Amino acid sequence: MRIVCLGSGNVATHMALAFKSAGAEFLQIWSKTLGHAEVLAVQTGAIATDKLKDINRNADLYIIAVKDDAIVEIAEALKGIEGLIVHTSGATSIDIFIPAAIKHFGVLYPLQTFSKSKAVDFSKIPLCIEAGTAETQILLKEVAKAISPLIYEVNTADRKLLHLAAVFACNFTNHLYHLGQEILQQSQLSFDLLRPLILETAEKVQTALPYDVQTGPAVRDDKQTLERHLELLQNMPELAEIYKTLSKSIKKTYL
Amino acid sequence: MRIVCLGSGNVATHMALAFKSAGAEFLQIWSKTLGHAEVLAVQTGAIATDKLKDINRNADLYIIAVKDDAIVEIAEALKGIEGLIVHTSGATSIDIFIPAAIKHFGVLYPLQTFSKSKAVDFSKIPLCIEAGTAETQILLKEVAKAISPLIYEVNTADRKLLHLAAVFACNFTNHLYHLGQEILQQSQLSFDLLRPLILETAEKVQTALPYDVQTGPAVRDDKQTLERHLELLQNMPELAEIYKTLSKSIKKTYL
Repeated sequence: MRIVCLGSGNVATHMALAFKSAGAEFLQIWSKTLGHAEVLAVQTGAIATDKLKDINRNADLYIIAVKDDAIVEIAEALKGIEGLIVHTSGATSIDIFIPAAIKHFGVLYPLQTFSKSKAVDFSKIPLCIEAGTAETQILLKEVAKAISPLIYEVNTADRKLLHLAAVFACNFTNHLYHLGQEILQQSQLSFDLLRPLILETAEKVQTALPYDVQTGPAVRDDKQTLERHLELLQNMPELAEIYKTLSKSIKKTYL
Repeated sequence: MRIVCLGSGNVATHMALAFKSAGAEFLQIWSKTLGHAEVLAVQTGAIATDKLKDINRNADLYIIAVKDDAIVEIAEALKGIEGLIVHTSGATSIDIFIPAAIKHFGVLYPLQTFSKSKAVDFSKIPLCIEAGTAETQILLKEVAKAISPLIYEVNTADRKLLHLAAVFACNFTNHLYHLGQEILQQSQLSFDLLRPLILETAEKVQTALPYDVQTGPAVRDDKQTLERHLELLQNMPELAEIYKTLSKSIKKTYL
């Protein structure tokens, strides 16, 4: 399988490396910043370019892994190509390919958070796929299986829900970790103290459902502790607001 | 070391089992509900009781692991005892032992979330200790080392901050997992889809700081996605409120 990767950010990098490990051949890496394309090109043995008009038009797979609002423009530039063209965005409809009259198109959305500095095991990442036709869906499924056995057929509406759920379960969660650290910094306490707790909280829901393992003062409706915590936050009004909002939501969930 | 454990909930159970594994002898398990005491008594080879007046007064260590508002009454009942008496509460001052004129007292606060159904490796749990005197502090440190090498000397004020930080990093986080699931349920999508993401989010901050690995639309100030997400939440006003509150806080953090 010969691949062109459009984009060189976290998703592009980790997905390209996964396909590379699975034996794919990379023809080109495109990025609007040539230096960024070059980094991933070196890692995948491809040629770097920053010119859409120079894209090789005979690859088997084109992975568009760029910012959501840049996908349309790239799809336009790939007009007339016979190969399979996919974007990797959770929040973007599959219909984005229609105006460019792309022949074989789909979505390959990896439900994971990627950072450049940390390797990920792609075989444990759920891949949500959707394609323009039933025939393309079969092809896309085969392609996706090369990097993960966890394939889910998810349409655009559901993928958008998934992306939203991921914001709650990942982005907001990471911010709460940060706020925990901000509280500790008031007293020069190390973030190391929280790390085992954070890991256990995530490990617990790998088998249980979060509803069944909720702990803390709000679920117990422990009014005294809730009040004392708000006193501790009186000089951190934003954290107090978040504390109230989430405690209210927990209490309502278990009413 | 001969131990009496007062309480039979999650903290009491996991801590008692850790001391048992470290070779301690359990004399008694007390609970106000005899049936609960009996379960832990069987696991630790101790005698169960629901009567505070029957507590053996010659143990080396008394672990009070009960609801915060029940600690005072138990401390009163232990008046005059020579052994070391500790509570395990993050939110409760060490001064709670003063009215009862307890001789050797302290706090042994394990910074972890416990559930009955899941075993935990106590050797990876940070133990926050505080004692009434420097002499007791040395003794308590030795006692704590029997179950974990991660000993932190933390005074009452800092322990309360830690407890508050843990609410953000654990209790609120778990609730966000639940809200993620609630979003998926709108479309019968499986919570399995979110599990790898949840684990990776927690694993990432085991070495990195959460500030450095924040992802998602709010940190990018991706207004289009933020708006679309709020549209998806228009029939879930509470989730919309949480979405707005946390996105605002993320944006402010990275301004």
